[in-house]
Amino acid sequence: MTLRTSIATVCLSGTLTDKLSACAEAGFDGVEIFEPDLVGSPASPEEITALARRLQLSLDLYQPFRDAEGVSEDQFPTVLRRARLKFRLMQRLGIDTMLVCSNVATATVDDDAVSASQLRRLGEEAEAYGVRLAFEALAWGRFVDDYRRAWRIAELADHPSVGVCLDSFHILSRGHDPAEIEQIPGDKIFFLQLADAPALRMDVLSWSRHHRLFPGEGSFDLARFVGHVLSTGYQGPMSLEVFNDTFRQTEVLRTAQQARRSLTWLEDLVARLPLQAPRPDVPVRLPDVGPPDAFDFIEVKAEDAGEVDTMLRQLGFAFRGHHRSKPVRLWTQGRARVVCNEQQAREWAPTLAAVGFQVADPDASAGRAHLLAAPAVFRRTHSNEQNLAAFRAPDGTEVFLADIADDAGWVPEFEGGEEPADDSLLTGVDHVNLAHPWQSFDEAVLFYSSVLSLQSGSSQDVAAPTGLVHSQVVRSRDGKVRLALNLAPLAFEHPHGFPQHVAFSSSDAMAAARAARSRGLRPLPIPGNYYDDLVARFDLPTWQVVEMQELGVLYDRDDEGGDFTHFYTETIGSVFFEVVQRRGGYDGYGAANAAVRLAAQHLRRQ
Amino acid sequence: MTLRTSIATVCLSGTLTDKLSACAEAGFDGVEIFEPDLVGSPASPEEITALARRLQLSLDLYQPFRDAEGVSEDQFPTVLRRARLKFRLMQRLGIDTMLVCSNVATATVDDDAVSASQLRRLGEEAEAYGVRLAFEALAWGRFVDDYRRAWRIAELADHPSVGVCLDSFHILSRGHDPAEIEQIPGDKIFFLQLADAPALRMDVLSWSRHHRLFPGEGSFDLARFVGHVLSTGYQGPMSLEVFNDTFRQTEVLRTAQQARRSLTWLEDLVARLPLQAPRPDVPVRLPDVGPPDAFDFIEVKAEDAGEVDTMLRQLGFAFRGHHRSKPVRLWTQGRARVVCNEQQAREWAPTLAAVGFQVADPDASAGRAHLLAAPAVFRRTHSNEQNLAAFRAPDGTEVFLADIADDAGWVPEFEGGEEPADDSLLTGVDHVNLAHPWQSFDEAVLFYSSVLSLQSGSSQDVAAPTGLVHSQVVRSRDGKVRLALNLAPLAFEHPHGFPQHVAFSSSDAMAAARAARSRGLRPLPIPGNYYDDLVARFDLPTWQVVEMQELGVLYDRDDEGGDFTHFYTETIGSVFFEVVQRRGGYDGYGAANAAVRLAAQHLRRQ
Repeated sequence: MTLRTSIATVCLSGTLTDKLSACAEAGFDGVEIFEPDLVGSPASPEEITALARRLQLSLDLYQPFRDAEGVSEDQFPTVLRRARLKFRLMQRLGIDTMLVCSNVATATVDDDAVSASQLRRLGEEAEAYGVRLAFEALAWGRFVDDYRRAWRIAELADHPSVGVCLDSFHILSRGHDPAEIEQIPGDKIFFLQLADAPALRMDVLSWSRHHRLFPGEGSFDLARFVGHVLSTGYQGPMSLEVFNDTFRQTEVLRTAQQARRSLTWLEDLVARLPLQAPRPDVPVRLPDVGPPDAFDFIEVKAEDAGEVDTMLRQLGFAFRGHHRSKPVRLWTQGRARVVCNEQQAREWAPTLAAVGFQVADPDASAGRAHLLAAPAVFRRTHSNEQNLAAFRAPDGTEVFLADIADDAGWVPEFEGGEEPADDSLLTGVDHVNLAHPWQSFDEAVLFYSSVLSLQSGSSQDVAAPTGLVHSQVVRSRDGKVRLALNLAPLAFEHPHGFPQHVAFSSSDAMAAARAARSRGLRPLPIPGNYYDDLVARFDLPTWQVVEMQELGVLYDRDDEGGDFTHFYTETIGSVFFEVVQRRGGYDGYGAANAAVRLAAQHLRRQ
Repeated sequence: MTLRTSIATVCLSGTLTDKLSACAEAGFDGVEIFEPDLVGSPASPEEITALARRLQLSLDLYQPFRDAEGVSEDQFPTVLRRARLKFRLMQRLGIDTMLVCSNVATATVDDDAVSASQLRRLGEEAEAYGVRLAFEALAWGRFVDDYRRAWRIAELADHPSVGVCLDSFHILSRGHDPAEIEQIPGDKIFFLQLADAPALRMDVLSWSRHHRLFPGEGSFDLARFVGHVLSTGYQGPMSLEVFNDTFRQTEVLRTAQQARRSLTWLEDLVARLPLQAPRPDVPVRLPDVGPPDAFDFIEVKAEDAGEVDTMLRQLGFAFRGHHRSKPVRLWTQGRARVVCNEQQAREWAPTLAAVGFQVADPDASAGRAHLLAAPAVFRRTHSNEQNLAAFRAPDGTEVFLADIADDAGWVPEFEGGEEPADDSLLTGVDHVNLAHPWQSFDEAVLFYSSVLSLQSGSSQDVAAPTGLVHSQVVRSRDGKVRLALNLAPLAFEHPHGFPQHVAFSSSDAMAAARAARSRGLRPLPIPGNYYDDLVARFDLPTWQVVEMQELGVLYDRDDEGGDFTHFYTETIGSVFFEVVQRRGGYDGYGAANAAVRLAAQHLRRQ
């Protein structure tokens, strides 16, 4: 038995036929038809069936049927009449499973026996049409809001056409223990719906209707959840049912591909779990590679990168020469490497265009990215001496994978430069900050966590003068690779796009600031009021604060006494740099100072 | 004593100096300085003070001071040191009141006596700097989360420099009874902060940080709240403190004007309340006019309105002629009047540009709009025989006010038309549907509720193929005037703007559909699947559903058996029409059918 994948049409934007085509192209085995999508479609049920057949998509579920059980016996004939018309419709569609939600509106009888009896009678009717009923406890059901109770009722109904549907959202959002799923016979679990979600504290109905996410984008432990379901011997599809205000608006094929990626990632996690039952085959096994070990290089692309060259020189980077075959220059300091790329860069203002990572097994990592449908990029930055695999992240950033054993073996492709100094104050790249529009933010979290095996770290809202910037860190556990993914506010006045930056690590940020100043760097100006506040927040010696103010250096301290000393450059195009020094285990990013930085950048644009 | 108005700088976008200028221009008496705005500003405290003086703005409050009380005695010297530096800063700013929030982070001692003792010692210190401390219970305070407890602690502190700050959000969001405010002596209430909020069920911290609104935009009873505060003899300002993700991004002056409008509206409500204490003067008293009694006319503006003329003819409207002096035509049916305006309409696709209302006292209504800073529009639609006051709503729609006693006395300005038929099937305008971008949606709710005295009705999210459309009804109590304000999704593909429409009322929508069809109208095509579902939802006779399907008529029924029969036209430019028939007290808008309509419109654009 092979695990099959499915997705509810409500996850996607567009018309029903758009959605079916996108689901097929993204590689799903089947779909759930969400009733309003059919009702709003001019295509007849027979046309939908024929289209699905041509696309080789199975139609796995029709949903939802509402307010079925727990009603008074007076009302029940109306339910039966309505159900019969829907069973007939399902026959026309060739769908054999109907999702029956627990009653939220018309239930008046809080009695398992009554609900079971009504479900049994619906089941008897359904059987005549070849239809099975998958009863699901909605988290906000009037009386039935727990999957364990839904199963008790289905068991009591005792009819071959009555089983349950399990939905990770309804179970995990309520904090119900999924381990008890294993007590349900696998052949009575008629359907499995999966959604991830962020850790929010809000009413569960709004949370469900607006903020579900694809697996890997939120904080549910879905692999463990699926493990419990598969342990029962469940053989149906893993199906995504994700209500999300953003995905309803984004391009249908792209969202379908993102959804499929989330399942490939999840299937692979599931395949590694211990199971009680025979393990279903997983069609795709991903190479088990860890996160990158280090940053390899950063690429700034520009028609004219001259100002960036100047700034790197001021920051103490050594010019390592021109690439032997392309209009590309290399700057290094410690393990920090910055490539200035003027190739195919007509009309580009300086932009952070690519990030290279060092990994233990580039072939395996590239294979993993490929299986997760990361779009490949033809390498054009380096000559054919070094062949780095490359993929495009959701925001367009190019991601390169190099062998850590080669230790940047591509550097000698650059000629005519100078030797790096021994006494460099910058040692490497601490983190890279990438901005995303609202359309691709969740997708980016999934991309970096699945393709690069990074994990979600802290998140933060920072107030800029033009709106809140939401920031989500993805990182390796050891902290050697950290990306801060920023969700830019809608209304911003950035001619070259929302600024992105590279933070270089330093063993002595004050000395680095002094040295940079002596080479002519003008750091981002920080207001005097910031330093007055710094004195109030932290008991720092006056001379130290005075020097920080002279150098535009900022400071933060954590509750354990670890501290963070850093400064920013001005922005060129949409790129700026930061120099950071962590001490005493400080693990943050100076969030309190980010608002000051954003205010200063806003002023520089005015 | 006159009520004074103030606003926290955190409500607005931009730099601190931008914010001060906008607050002054919008007519506020003072501001609260939100500390991060000062910290991020290059202007020194002395410059801010001088700017405020030139702008005639008082600096009313410095905020916030966090984690002041409930700490261990070991920690308290650090608190005192920090406070002293802030008192010194406040001296430089010339601000005499500091907001001290209840401790959320460092509190370890849950004891009123300890908190009171620490506040007293802070107060003694503050007094030397001429500073008063306004202690506020945050809704999520670690131990102190209720204003009644904050007052007990302040009372126990028993120091002239220690009082309380009351914030409507922290009190009403928790459901605490504001009536007990009257037990606090007015001179111990050092500050009053106001925010409205929508009725959401989410954790109170996120609700507070992202979703506060200006008074009149949400669902709190702020007039009653302020009444309780003024009954104590409170003489300080009414100050807005509204954290809102949208207002942080919108144009600063416009948001400041919106904020000021909300206070003018609220002050006027407060001035009508019975109070226990001497009533403060309210600088602006609004004319007490009710909502409009009826729609007067609808204007469609277009470079070429010919297609609209054709459609109105098909809907049974009578052509009443050309305006005697302008390129404007009038169509009427029953009390529905549609003006097609081709004046100054170069390159305009047909657009719903203006809505006229009939009111009992146009001068009073216009005076009210003027006092609420509704931007006046110079009338250009009609000749000088009828001089209608006009204002521009936040989305740009022009709002005209006519005297109901004149009963559309401007109609004779149109000449060369025909007499209306006696047997018209449409009787008037049922509702008008106006689309708003995210920037102006909340502002529009306030505009219509304050300027036109309409009240908020039902709200709804409807799924379109390109995203959710949020819809908020504002209406007169009697239902004669209803506007549906739509918040359009971000990503939509409307070349002429998100469609808006006028729904005409009919005594017989089926007959109106038949008649329109006979005159050549092609209604918006509704899918066959909709009618299959209709049969399942409602037990309607087959012949009736067949005729509905032929005519593109939709149907809804409420729980009390009232029903709604309606159909839509195609869209021309960004305008379409609907014909609706309400029976048996049906009071909705066919929300279940709106999704089908949006899907059909989406298909027509493809």
